[in-house]
Amino acid sequence: MLIVMDRLATPAQIESVLDRIRSLGLDPHPNPGAQRTAIGITGNTGAIDAPVLEELPGVLEIIRVSHPYKLVSREVQPENSIVPVGGVCFGGEKVIVVAGPCAIESLDQARTIAEAVKKAGAHVYRGGAYKPRTSPYAFQGLGEAGLEIMAKVREEFEIPIMTEVLDTETLPLVEQYSDCLQIGARNMQNFSLLKKAGKANKPVLLKRGMSATIEELLLSAEYLLSGGNRNVILCERGVRTFADHTRNTLDLSAVVAIHRLSHLPVMVDPSHGTGKRHKVIPLARAAVAVGADSIMVEVHHKPEAALSDGPQAILPDQFAELMEQLGRLAPVVGRTI
Amino acid sequence: MLIVMDRLATPAQIESVLDRIRSLGLDPHPNPGAQRTAIGITGNTGAIDAPVLEELPGVLEIIRVSHPYKLVSREVQPENSIVPVGGVCFGGEKVIVVAGPCAIESLDQARTIAEAVKKAGAHVYRGGAYKPRTSPYAFQGLGEAGLEIMAKVREEFEIPIMTEVLDTETLPLVEQYSDCLQIGARNMQNFSLLKKAGKANKPVLLKRGMSATIEELLLSAEYLLSGGNRNVILCERGVRTFADHTRNTLDLSAVVAIHRLSHLPVMVDPSHGTGKRHKVIPLARAAVAVGADSIMVEVHHKPEAALSDGPQAILPDQFAELMEQLGRLAPVVGRTI
Amino acid sequence: MLIVMDRLATPAQIESVLDRIRSLGLDPHPNPGAQRTAIGITGNTGAIDAPVLEELPGVLEIIRVSHPYKLVSREVQPENSIVPVGGVCFGGEKVIVVAGPCAIESLDQARTIAEAVKKAGAHVYRGGAYKPRTSPYAFQGLGEAGLEIMAKVREEFEIPIMTEVLDTETLPLVEQYSDCLQIGARNMQNFSLLKKAGKANKPVLLKRGMSATIEELLLSAEYLLSGGNRNVILCERGVRTFADHTRNTLDLSAVVAIHRLSHLPVMVDPSHGTGKRHKVIPLARAAVAVGADSIMVEVHHKPEAALSDGPQAILPDQFAELMEQLGRLAPVVGRTI
Amino acid sequence: MLIVMDRLATPAQIESVLDRIRSLGLDPHPNPGAQRTAIGITGNTGAIDAPVLEELPGVLEIIRVSHPYKLVSREVQPENSIVPVGGVCFGGEKVIVVAGPCAIESLDQARTIAEAVKKAGAHVYRGGAYKPRTSPYAFQGLGEAGLEIMAKVREEFEIPIMTEVLDTETLPLVEQYSDCLQIGARNMQNFSLLKKAGKANKPVLLKRGMSATIEELLLSAEYLLSGGNRNVILCERGVRTFADHTRNTLDLSAVVAIHRLSHLPVMVDPSHGTGKRHKVIPLARAAVAVGADSIMVEVHHKPEAALSDGPQAILPDQFAELMEQLGRLAPVVGRTI
Repeated sequence: MLIVMDRLATPAQIESVLDRIRSLGLDPHPNPGAQRTAIGITGNTGAIDAPVLEELPGVLEIIRVSHPYKLVSREVQPENSIVPVGGVCFGGEKVIVVAGPCAIESLDQARTIAEAVKKAGAHVYRGGAYKPRTSPYAFQGLGEAGLEIMAKVREEFEIPIMTEVLDTETLPLVEQYSDCLQIGARNMQNFSLLKKAGKANKPVLLKRGMSATIEELLLSAEYLLSGGNRNVILCERGVRTFADHTRNTLDLSAVVAIHRLSHLPVMVDPSHGTGKRHKVIPLARAAVAVGADSIMVEVHHKPEAALSDGPQAILPDQFAELMEQLGRLAPVVGRTI
Repeated sequence: MLIVMDRLATPAQIESVLDRIRSLGLDPHPNPGAQRTAIGITGNTGAIDAPVLEELPGVLEIIRVSHPYKLVSREVQPENSIVPVGGVCFGGEKVIVVAGPCAIESLDQARTIAEAVKKAGAHVYRGGAYKPRTSPYAFQGLGEAGLEIMAKVREEFEIPIMTEVLDTETLPLVEQYSDCLQIGARNMQNFSLLKKAGKANKPVLLKRGMSATIEELLLSAEYLLSGGNRNVILCERGVRTFADHTRNTLDLSAVVAIHRLSHLPVMVDPSHGTGKRHKVIPLARAAVAVGADSIMVEVHHKPEAALSDGPQAILPDQFAELMEQLGRLAPVVGRTI
Repeated sequence: MLIVMDRLATPAQIESVLDRIRSLGLDPHPNPGAQRTAIGITGNTGAIDAPVLEELPGVLEIIRVSHPYKLVSREVQPENSIVPVGGVCFGGEKVIVVAGPCAIESLDQARTIAEAVKKAGAHVYRGGAYKPRTSPYAFQGLGEAGLEIMAKVREEFEIPIMTEVLDTETLPLVEQYSDCLQIGARNMQNFSLLKKAGKANKPVLLKRGMSATIEELLLSAEYLLSGGNRNVILCERGVRTFADHTRNTLDLSAVVAIHRLSHLPVMVDPSHGTGKRHKVIPLARAAVAVGADSIMVEVHHKPEAALSDGPQAILPDQFAELMEQLGRLAPVVGRTI
Repeated sequence: MLIVMDRLATPAQIESVLDRIRSLGLDPHPNPGAQRTAIGITGNTGAIDAPVLEELPGVLEIIRVSHPYKLVSREVQPENSIVPVGGVCFGGEKVIVVAGPCAIESLDQARTIAEAVKKAGAHVYRGGAYKPRTSPYAFQGLGEAGLEIMAKVREEFEIPIMTEVLDTETLPLVEQYSDCLQIGARNMQNFSLLKKAGKANKPVLLKRGMSATIEELLLSAEYLLSGGNRNVILCERGVRTFADHTRNTLDLSAVVAIHRLSHLPVMVDPSHGTGKRHKVIPLARAAVAVGADSIMVEVHHKPEAALSDGPQAILPDQFAELMEQLGRLAPVVGRTI
């Protein structure tokens, strides 16, 4: 941590800041410069809130130097983590493709889509049983019935499944059925849910919140790892900006940033990231080109009749075409599909 | 709902869209214009996701006309709602001032601050027992011990209390102790928590999410009202933008916007809204000047030793000065303090 | 400037960074910490781009300590600047109210509005002769004819005038007619225009760009002061965010932030800041309550027929009511109107 | 245009709105719905500001239906525009790679970099002679001397050149030397410059403003086309968001959005779009994968000594590696390099 003193700070003000630092059990290292004094701090600064000192007289600003996360950091573990989901490994050479409907609507719908995506080469099947909906009047998902349908799909098509967990009450149920617990963007800072998921026996897919920084995403992941669950996949799914031509603005630079800071695998979700069908395929290609370890794509055979997010689902034929494109693209970045 | 057709849409494409609308049990009303055709839709359009039709050939865009919320709407209830919290009424002529520490740290700390804010004229006491913290290593609150301390403060100083509820597990406990359930910004779209709070017997303070639109905030409130709880206060506490001189950007226009759309009372939290002590008083004044029904301010007698968010807490003396200023300001907008 | 080394940086990498700093004629001060080494730099660091060193092996990040602006800084001039505009002083005890139409449309329109705002107590008259319009097909302003009309208004109603200057070609003409050169948000980083305005003999009103940080605004003002023009007023007029209930999000905390960093007076424009008539008066009150030195309000007697931005103009009667409210509000913050 | 009336609007209010529309010479088409009345408007609605009617009693909101741009629209010209720059065609099958230093610093520096990028396969050479700098104390470019150096590079290496034009004064000079006039993000709404560039005899590269919507970018391009210059290339270079891990957030979905709305070619600039060297190559790949017609990359052989934006420049070796990767990637999207 570094404290920058005002140009006009008096020696007494500087001395008072040094005293305060010592009183916190830390070591101050004053650095008088031509224009102003900066004070470095060593010791366990993680224990104090960075800005505690910001309002002392003569202090211009406080600059935090160490990152506040540990277990997720690439400094702690330089090599990539490999996260297995029902036998499929995220974070290795293979780019993992997760596909399926936004919401499970019926066994028939789930099977039809599963058959198509499996045939086209998808590695994991996704589907929503519990749906977070902005409006209380919108379709909220089939609940446990949806989980049972997904389990049948897994058995019939021999494909791992992942589905969203909305709250701590239903977590044990989702954990029992699903190969991976998906925590959505709106729950990225639902710390009670993170603590429970940190104790779960299944891997967790953690989506970036709509206005979360990379550091906040990594700190939420730190809740999971510090709880004991080291099998965590992170997911970029678009952030909220002024731009109105997409539902969210997909921030593909996040993939590179996370890979630099953390050893955890990174997925990209171009379906939620754009909210528009015609943008899904181009941005799925871009996600693989930028270096994502996985992509998640919503597929529906009758999107105009879908009960949730139909407009962002691509058709089975389009998915097959996407897989074909990715098969040619992956080798350019030293990957396979 | 209105469907705008492409300038180049063919008659067959238009006819196909009309058929689709009729197949959904709705009535299409084509409006051929000089440049393009627009198709109005009447019937219960609330039941379909707006963009379901967006990808049909020849469709340029879909425009939703009705608001998706009902019970929170001023169209449904033109007069202001009055929400009582432990005998104090939010939404009336009086501007309600809620004050207290970010987190309850000890009985001594809680009492010291309560005595000061009560004496200065605060109407409701706030304090955090369960704290949502970005880092798993930060102070997480005293839990039930904190609730007990708050209850003692209420008794001793005869002041209603409000505190944050973090999850459905602890909701019954918080409901038992607190006069109002505060749902934080990170939980604004925690729909499981909203559903439970909609069944609670205590009023709810619902804070706007860091990147939530007014419509999303009102839809989250709709979860509460449609669950049966009509005692809801909304709170603007800053949104996330590119600006880096404050922790969040306080959006005071939200007060006017919500008052226009909804009958619910609106609070402003300049402490979280700015994250900087020296900005709290000016923006608290601005909040009352813009027409807020209430403000919430963090106060701490030793902010540099606070276990949470010290830098945004004002001192008891500053709080007293703020109350004095608000006492002169409120009449300008036809209110009292 | 501070260089933070990676936890895993080797001694050789650290040595190499020290060498590089010395080669730039600066003094490195290494600070070995428990987790990593930080290197302070003293000397004239302003001459190098901060991130030049960021990509050296072993470097984690670069932290800039000094502010890059000088003349606008309160460190250089602790007391407030007073900026005179045609005899009216911005930055003193009096809150200056600037009012008038968005665009000058005719002598008749300009006179009607001037008479109303002058009578209600406005101190300066505003109006656009050259209009920056998003669309090439929108009304672009009357040009010099508009300036002539404004000059007539000044003479008849004995009120200083201010109007926008769009480019370096028309700057001499605007300088000749207007008491103040207004530089709009879209031109905040039009550096050629800033350089010319820095040489002008009239004060400058510089509006914050739609996505400009406070530091960028101050650096643009630094162009003016370093060019020799010390009479600069800064203006907050809303920034661009995801929020869709207003045209822009008015960032009132900017007033406090600028006052802390700079000695220049600060204006707030709630008309552009909201884009909605019914929000102008509440936010104008809030601007004065937060401590603005001036507000600028668009007034039109027939807004529904205005050639530009009609929906954000308030009516003359509303303006008179606003002035009455501000007259009662200003004393609360130790000001007069 | 569509006017949506309030649910509680009276028949008299509706009638009054209809009258107003007729008085503007337009035709109103009322559409009484179950919940509220919507009024379609036909006629030349482009001539009126959309929100002029928004404040009439009983009006809930105004919805604009037609796009306000014409010449840039794909509705007007369905086939892609091909824009030639010194013999190199933007918008065809070939993905055009523009490379060079941020700023021209010397003939030696310019030649060294030109030789490297030409050898690696770059199609156009870029370099800044006039530099827009946030700080008045930063290097402002060599001016005409820089243009002369670029002309020499063009001759020696037989490669077209493009450089930024900052203002109307230097436009004739830049037009004389450069094969393409680059208008930077900060000048996207410098309408005086756009008008002049619309009359120029050279193609224009127009960069998206840091907080510009796609519609605003297209309207700025409309200034150019309506001025007579049909040779326009658009460029996505990152927008401003809360995210702090990159200098800007590169919005690759913009490429797809613009291609859908307009016939103009689209470039992506991953150097400014990220501001970090290690992110340039991954995002350049992503840009081609998403369908960009061109990319612009900053290259410097000694980035740590560069006078401007060194940290985002890649090294000549990295550029050669990028070209090799793009050569394999382009065929996946049906393009060549």
